[in-house]
Amino acid sequence: MEIKPIEFRDEKLILIDQRKLPKTEEYFICSDYKDVIYAIKNMVVRGAPAIGVAASYGIALYVLKNDSIKNFENVLKDFSSTRPTAVNLFWAINRMKKKFDEVKDLGIERVREELLKEAEKIYQEDIEINKKIGENGNKLIRDNSNILTHCNAGALATAGYGTALGVIRSAFYSGKKIHVYVDETRPFLQGSRLTAWELMKENIPCTLICDNMAGFLMKQGKIDAVIVGADRIASNGDTANKIGTYTLAVLAKKHNIPFYVAAPYSTFDFNISSGKEIPIEERPKEEVTEMFTKNSAPDGVNVYNPAFDVTDAELITAIITEKEILYPPLK
Amino acid sequence: MEIKPIEFRDEKLILIDQRKLPKTEEYFICSDYKDVIYAIKNMVVRGAPAIGVAASYGIALYVLKNDSIKNFENVLKDFSSTRPTAVNLFWAINRMKKKFDEVKDLGIERVREELLKEAEKIYQEDIEINKKIGENGNKLIRDNSNILTHCNAGALATAGYGTALGVIRSAFYSGKKIHVYVDETRPFLQGSRLTAWELMKENIPCTLICDNMAGFLMKQGKIDAVIVGADRIASNGDTANKIGTYTLAVLAKKHNIPFYVAAPYSTFDFNISSGKEIPIEERPKEEVTEMFTKNSAPDGVNVYNPAFDVTDAELITAIITEKEILYPPLK
Repeated sequence: MEIKPIEFRDEKLILIDQRKLPKTEEYFICSDYKDVIYAIKNMVVRGAPAIGVAASYGIALYVLKNDSIKNFENVLKDFSSTRPTAVNLFWAINRMKKKFDEVKDLGIERVREELLKEAEKIYQEDIEINKKIGENGNKLIRDNSNILTHCNAGALATAGYGTALGVIRSAFYSGKKIHVYVDETRPFLQGSRLTAWELMKENIPCTLICDNMAGFLMKQGKIDAVIVGADRIASNGDTANKIGTYTLAVLAKKHNIPFYVAAPYSTFDFNISSGKEIPIEERPKEEVTEMFTKNSAPDGVNVYNPAFDVTDAELITAIITEKEILYPPLK
Repeated sequence: MEIKPIEFRDEKLILIDQRKLPKTEEYFICSDYKDVIYAIKNMVVRGAPAIGVAASYGIALYVLKNDSIKNFENVLKDFSSTRPTAVNLFWAINRMKKKFDEVKDLGIERVREELLKEAEKIYQEDIEINKKIGENGNKLIRDNSNILTHCNAGALATAGYGTALGVIRSAFYSGKKIHVYVDETRPFLQGSRLTAWELMKENIPCTLICDNMAGFLMKQGKIDAVIVGADRIASNGDTANKIGTYTLAVLAKKHNIPFYVAAPYSTFDFNISSGKEIPIEERPKEEVTEMFTKNSAPDGVNVYNPAFDVTDAELITAIITEKEILYPPLK
């Protein structure tokens, strides 16, 4: 039962609507590039690699569906301003732009063909990359492990298979006996809604906990490893990921538990030297007070809702990529 | 606008129904001791000191409302089995039993009178104790502080005024400029539902965050002190409190932020030498998947839901009591 979070068919981008999971599996159909922008902004699709793939198809949709494509640069800007933290978005936009620049003088039909091909390539590559990340990461997973993960770095966060969950899948399907503790991941509940759903779909044993329980589990010796994804990795290895990741890394260090980041090379931002330069998105207060909670806070309450945090390289045991396993701090 | 979480009037115990806050202020009327047992078990009333006070009145209700009180010992057992972690419950039950043993041969009317008087005394003492805790704790709070608190150790968790929030109230009303970051406190959301409600009612500046954001705030230098309540303190200073407290203490240590526990002396359990001996309650999975969340987890998901954790004495900067400020580890 393979999870297909993203599919391009008949000039439409078909996204599983991640806001509706796990209760209903609905699909969000993008016939226009603006639909894709809406989907990224409003978290119909989320997860750093998935956003990159969706944006690539969105850009392809723009050239496919418009007779005049003279607004190409503006469309790229629109995609750039959807979400600020994950670098894969900018990486994908740049790749599409590079291809466009290569072929833009060869006629609209050729542009359409080449840009769609490039988006397909980004999509296919992402799945292959994740399988390699899974293979590499599996070397670090011991048999009979209890693994803690945060947010969703799974099939749903990518073109398929997943990064952190790719490592977990790889360990599970290679016959290792593993059990996953799933942080629910407030406020958007990507852990309880998406990761638990993915794991249960494939019968990978898992138990849901609230984010604030992780420390107590570690103290009891219930966690053997932590694996998370990444939204942006600075040159020195500092890693931005879903809010709460930094806390897990501090806790893992305190309890001598390995803390792994699983991410494709496209997550590295070699233009910045440390995590201090990574912009942290702040999202609407309603995500905390209303979206997935009921009767949960007084009307008018002040809310601070950063979507990501930065984990210092020194707290990360290893960064698992499709090429190699890196041991921060990186020089 | 004083918050009256517990009131005894006309042979009835009137509890603000904390499950309904903050959207509605409803009262739960206990005419019988069994209503009080229900209220404690189901978290109509919660918070270590408040549970002790409610149980005292519940025991008084038993002798007030029954012609034969030969089941007294069994009623005490029923109260003892409501919730396992907070020691104030057992402390209050013991105090009521001691009074009962003193007067039991003096006739039913006298027993009724004395037990009600004892419950009233426990209630009044609790408020006075909290005000003293507030005064003592205020000495540790610097002007212009950002204070992080977890769960609700406020008026609602006590007979009134609160322990951790008592310190915050005391600092605020003494004219210090303070701002409180309120951890929402999954799964039962005591922070967002109760603490934010209490603070906003008195216009004490506050901002709601999700539990997993605390580490990121500390890293940014946004937190000057952490104050929490306690459910049980072992002789060495190890402290059981709402799940998530331990994580905050680890984070505070890492960032050199003082970590304070505010609690009455009745929270100490001198029968145990360390936190290892404190029983940790596990609560129903529905608290995580349904109670205050919607569309949040797949049906049938495994859940681990410990209600408390234990913070090692070495991570606690000071324990603020009504008598003195203690600096763990205690001998």
